[in-house]
Amino acid sequence: MKQKLYFLPESEIPTQWYNIQADMKIKPQPMLDPVTRKPVTVEDLSRIFSVECSKQELNTTDAWIDIPEEVREYYAYYRPSPLVRAYGLEKALDTPARIYFKNESVSPIGSHKLNSALPQAYYCKQEGVTNVTTETGAGQWGAALSYASRLFGLECAVYQVKISYQQKPYRRNIMQVFGAQVTPSPSMSTRAGKDILTAFPNHQGSLGTAISEAVELARMTPGCKYTLGSTMSHVSLHQTIIGLEAEKQMALAEDYPDVVIACFGGGSNFSGIAFPFMRHTLLEGKKTRYIAAEPSACPKLTQGEFTYDFGDEAGYTPLIPMFSLGHNFKPANIHAGGLRYHGAGAIVSQLMKDGIMEAADVKQLETFDAGLLFAKAEGIIPAPESCHAIAVAIREANRCKENGQAETILFNLSGHGLVDMAAYDQYLSGNLVNCD
Amino acid sequence: MKQKLYFLPESEIPTQWYNIQADMKIKPQPMLDPVTRKPVTVEDLSRIFSVECSKQELNTTDAWIDIPEEVREYYAYYRPSPLVRAYGLEKALDTPARIYFKNESVSPIGSHKLNSALPQAYYCKQEGVTNVTTETGAGQWGAALSYASRLFGLECAVYQVKISYQQKPYRRNIMQVFGAQVTPSPSMSTRAGKDILTAFPNHQGSLGTAISEAVELARMTPGCKYTLGSTMSHVSLHQTIIGLEAEKQMALAEDYPDVVIACFGGGSNFSGIAFPFMRHTLLEGKKTRYIAAEPSACPKLTQGEFTYDFGDEAGYTPLIPMFSLGHNFKPANIHAGGLRYHGAGAIVSQLMKDGIMEAADVKQLETFDAGLLFAKAEGIIPAPESCHAIAVAIREANRCKENGQAETILFNLSGHGLVDMAAYDQYLSGNLVNCD
Repeated sequence: MKQKLYFLPESEIPTQWYNIQADMKIKPQPMLDPVTRKPVTVEDLSRIFSVECSKQELNTTDAWIDIPEEVREYYAYYRPSPLVRAYGLEKALDTPARIYFKNESVSPIGSHKLNSALPQAYYCKQEGVTNVTTETGAGQWGAALSYASRLFGLECAVYQVKISYQQKPYRRNIMQVFGAQVTPSPSMSTRAGKDILTAFPNHQGSLGTAISEAVELARMTPGCKYTLGSTMSHVSLHQTIIGLEAEKQMALAEDYPDVVIACFGGGSNFSGIAFPFMRHTLLEGKKTRYIAAEPSACPKLTQGEFTYDFGDEAGYTPLIPMFSLGHNFKPANIHAGGLRYHGAGAIVSQLMKDGIMEAADVKQLETFDAGLLFAKAEGIIPAPESCHAIAVAIREANRCKENGQAETILFNLSGHGLVDMAAYDQYLSGNLVNCD
Repeated sequence: MKQKLYFLPESEIPTQWYNIQADMKIKPQPMLDPVTRKPVTVEDLSRIFSVECSKQELNTTDAWIDIPEEVREYYAYYRPSPLVRAYGLEKALDTPARIYFKNESVSPIGSHKLNSALPQAYYCKQEGVTNVTTETGAGQWGAALSYASRLFGLECAVYQVKISYQQKPYRRNIMQVFGAQVTPSPSMSTRAGKDILTAFPNHQGSLGTAISEAVELARMTPGCKYTLGSTMSHVSLHQTIIGLEAEKQMALAEDYPDVVIACFGGGSNFSGIAFPFMRHTLLEGKKTRYIAAEPSACPKLTQGEFTYDFGDEAGYTPLIPMFSLGHNFKPANIHAGGLRYHGAGAIVSQLMKDGIMEAADVKQLETFDAGLLFAKAEGIIPAPESCHAIAVAIREANRCKENGQAETILFNLSGHGLVDMAAYDQYLSGNLVNCD
């Protein structure tokens, strides 16, 4: 029998995350205080984030950071996630390539987001925080934080992009099941929200706006901290557990990827699967390609500019060195809500600038073509975000077929699409369009 | 670190299913031809089912049936499923009981139903069948058969109970993603459907009616066979893979269940988890309790009568010896669509009659109370059907607390509820009621 799933025993759950900043010859440029233009400090960051996450954010020296025992215990609720050999997809494409995917959809909340929600909630609890807040688009991050908050006994308030709040009631319900307070953004509960609603009464919301609201709530509320599901370096750090496991599992399969692919919003799942492999490129010159798959409707890496920009609409965050489409960029309303963000994290932006990685953009219809093909071949209905990674993996597998090359392709299945079936319904009924 | 998940290697996926009929001292009474009143034969059954499933249905002598290699290969897409120690739930209940659950929600289609859909589709394909048909309520079985049909290259037509077709569009979309043709039942495409619509133009559908339509289609269409997701003995046989794995996993945990619990519609997931353990009760007198958790709105085991009855509304099936509420029983519209069936399978009915197992009924609100508690404690949102098993597991854990007994409770989490969030929304907003 051909082996399909590669599992690791619970004892093989990594005990440390990998901090790629320590191994980068050219470090990411510092985040700047927008007023003083000086690099931000741990003290600055810890006004809104937990102290430990603020330290991790600015740590450019330690390559390995210990995972707290309590976090590992909760990781063991769903990790190690399986590495899967995509025999079905290979057959459907008639490609000589060997295709693997890391299946992060098996997490309780259905995506990789819990990998960072758990440590962020844990550190907050350790530091005496009682309330956490965040923004969410499609709701994957919000659901993860809601669940993690529940586990650690924190109150959780989520600002959800209004159009998603209305279009994706199921994901909102999931957050509510876990006890979170979910507010459609822009709301009248913050200054940032009020300002936007005054100027644009029918504003449908954006991640940038929702971030502004959550940051404002954290600033104004004693005992409340802000958390973020992507973009920041400490989030990438936490997500490396994906790639660290995948590295061990690829060894079990006696294989090693020539190409590593993940969809790209702010960078959390891309960093997670790519950085542990990239370590061998940085340290040993290993020739592996790393491809960020982004939507054509929000093409920050392929079309954006490398610049200092805000992470949010209202300009509450530090200035971040990033590939950006501008913090006021309004992406079209594609179903991959988690990829509708204007900027890339500082680490990825530097790696992109230095030619260590690549990016590819995909139009919405191609992503759903890929998602359907994958679902039929592998039985898992992918999240609209993950469909971007699948589309690029298919392009690479087709290239292998044309060239007769038996390369090894690894992609991250960041989440399942069971709460996004309305998007598939639209696709199947022929009503889905490209947005760009 | 406390072990939470018990995995088995792929090589430990069972190679045989367990046929409990061989070990029952009192065999189930035979199914009867409704006209001749004679026991049905393999030839009779194979007019609508595959020959191999018909043979398995009537096999009361072989305790072990080989699983075809191709089926095992597809089982390896998602099996072995994890056995999980429910530390979170134990803590929430402050019980001395050790609670475990087998997590069948990790299957590609989100429930245990695929365990039988795969062999049923496989046997059809082997026998030269080109089309399969079935009925589905909430859509779990329909989704499973749609996916299995896809894998084996069969066309698939599903009759979905009309009210579910309308209320649960996501599950319908899942079937359509896998390429199935989904028709709301009652429909005008069959004689059975037409007759019901003529008498009751606004009929909302029932499993019994949808079965009639699917059986009629199979009878009338060359190359088309009917498949069923529950009730039949061959379905129970296929589902024993759940309990056979669980038995090995309980051994890894160095534990053994005092109580085994599963929700009960027609018996597929209950049989699946209970029969392999029940073998030790039948053969060695092992004292284990087996509890079928059924909805108060459809209480065939606790309130029904042991009798010969039809499996469908129109009376197309053989007469089955079953605990039944009557084949024209119209259960209230509870969210657990998979449990809205009037009868229990022949094996379970006999075991119930002989006092080998018990049944408990639960009202809808108690099931959702249990589901919410479980979701918050374990992070997995359970299907409304599975909430019945959880509710009874909680009753047992509370009993252990009252008596100070550290018993071991095992239940089957038959599926997740991510496609049933509308039910949770109703519950959370205080609009859910008991239906009986």
